[in-house]
Amino acid sequence: MSAATNSNLFTRPAVLRMMAVASVPGKIILLGEHGVLYGQPCLSVAIDLRVGVEMQEGSAATVNGRPLDSRRHTYIKHAIDKYWQGEPLEVVTYSKIPSASGLGSSAAITTASVACLLTLQQSFSPEEVAQRAFAVEYEVQRGGSPNDTSACTQGSAIVLAREKRDHFIWKISRKDRTWYVHSIPAPEMDIVVGVTGVKSKTPQLVKKVRRFVNYSGFARELTQDIGGWVEEGIAALAHSDFVSLGEAMTESQKILHTLGASSPELEKLIQASLRAGAYGAKLTGAGGGGSMIALTDEPEKVAIAIEKAGGKALVTSISREGTKVWV
Amino acid sequence: MSAATNSNLFTRPAVLRMMAVASVPGKIILLGEHGVLYGQPCLSVAIDLRVGVEMQEGSAATVNGRPLDSRRHTYIKHAIDKYWQGEPLEVVTYSKIPSASGLGSSAAITTASVACLLTLQQSFSPEEVAQRAFAVEYEVQRGGSPNDTSACTQGSAIVLAREKRDHFIWKISRKDRTWYVHSIPAPEMDIVVGVTGVKSKTPQLVKKVRRFVNYSGFARELTQDIGGWVEEGIAALAHSDFVSLGEAMTESQKILHTLGASSPELEKLIQASLRAGAYGAKLTGAGGGGSMIALTDEPEKVAIAIEKAGGKALVTSISREGTKVWV
Repeated sequence: MSAATNSNLFTRPAVLRMMAVASVPGKIILLGEHGVLYGQPCLSVAIDLRVGVEMQEGSAATVNGRPLDSRRHTYIKHAIDKYWQGEPLEVVTYSKIPSASGLGSSAAITTASVACLLTLQQSFSPEEVAQRAFAVEYEVQRGGSPNDTSACTQGSAIVLAREKRDHFIWKISRKDRTWYVHSIPAPEMDIVVGVTGVKSKTPQLVKKVRRFVNYSGFARELTQDIGGWVEEGIAALAHSDFVSLGEAMTESQKILHTLGASSPELEKLIQASLRAGAYGAKLTGAGGGGSMIALTDEPEKVAIAIEKAGGKALVTSISREGTKVWV
Repeated sequence: MSAATNSNLFTRPAVLRMMAVASVPGKIILLGEHGVLYGQPCLSVAIDLRVGVEMQEGSAATVNGRPLDSRRHTYIKHAIDKYWQGEPLEVVTYSKIPSASGLGSSAAITTASVACLLTLQQSFSPEEVAQRAFAVEYEVQRGGSPNDTSACTQGSAIVLAREKRDHFIWKISRKDRTWYVHSIPAPEMDIVVGVTGVKSKTPQLVKKVRRFVNYSGFARELTQDIGGWVEEGIAALAHSDFVSLGEAMTESQKILHTLGASSPELEKLIQASLRAGAYGAKLTGAGGGGSMIALTDEPEKVAIAIEKAGGKALVTSISREGTKVWV
């Protein structure tokens, strides 16, 4: 321990070290992936698999006891570098969201980190968290949309659209693009996630679909059809009409399959879920691996069907609570 | 494959094979362990970590693809032997309850198995499930109380008592003992479970406390004090008074510690939870290892405190839904 650190410890008693904890839900894209990249709306739901991040002023910058590292802790370090000028922070994370599964693990960690940093500076507000968490993701990923960070911040169900609608909560702009975020009412619902175990390569998938869309008028129409199913899904959600919502999911999946975003592993878990009686099922996120979701009121039955088909199943529900912070 | 099996397959198409799925919550004892063995009441809560069991008529008796085995699948096999005379059953299990953690994993698997078997015979009812699931546990364990199987069957919060009270749902008798089970109203609540990783040796713990109680009038009084805190807890629950409920938990823990049911690992996680601001914390189940629980409305904050103190934390909520079955 250096003399400087020691003197810090003596001049500032441990009990006065500031501390904040944030709890943030994961998210799934219910409807609209790939379409959203071509101006179509997107419907996402926060799920009750959560992450917690604790930040406390200390003598050295650490994450879970290891030195803060730009490779291992990319998003946390970027958030701290961007939004913190105080003492070194000791960070501890707690996560129930499997990483690289399309469930918004990195968006949730980023959102929780930003929420802690703002809380430590007494300037927490949901919109501030959503704006700044997106800024971190955008800079680290050199692009992207504010969908995941807004869903993690707000909780419940959100609609991302290019125009302002009812239930508007905030807008976020980058370069010539503006996204309007809306928090829409949603009923209790059970969603079973099936993780294929095949890592989704988002950038490659996005490029592959983009080539198809640029080349083919048919593919461009398909992205508009995805947008149409998002609108159907939003209407179904407003009426707690799970049959229509499930249909919108399964029909969207057919389009995503045609666009080349599905995979044999995803199709297997989707078919198993539908045979087990799910209202609807589709991939979630970029596809090509990653995870699928099934809407059902028989969650363990669908979970068993997914596991029998070779996937790892997670039974989740919509999370009404977005980002929460405690000191 | 034997000729007999083959002929079975031909005479009875696969599509007509009967199938049932049961979904069952885990449970925690909120207040009253050890006291309940001396006639005191006990308050338990079902939690939203669930197990699923699927049973389908097939050509061979299997569990998750392996032959049904009395050592590996003790409770499932006992339930099938006792309550099934039909075709061999192919059983698949799905569990989010860590085993041997005091969260009722074996009671939940037993309850789910019995619920499936009754559903296959069109004779499912919650009381029937509770009675028969207890019968299986009682025979396998050569004793015990119907607390866990009743909690798993009913969901929400239950009180086990030696006399009939308000909210009575069923009674269960063995030899000269009768337990009355009550389903009491309970608010939404978050409970963080801290698993020590040290296996709880329930029979040894129960014997150790019994020797103390038989030998000492002071220890007998302590078991009555546990009962007193259960009554306080029931009253607090009825008023959603988490401060008083937390106090009942923490005071019960002091008694359990005096009775010799705690352990250094449990104490460490309990103290960490209380320092992190939990309303109350105590061991759950027999003690001497196993798990502790903390009542809090800052669950991820307490979870991080538990993990920093060396435990494995599980954020759970009360589960309003008991056993559910689907065909």
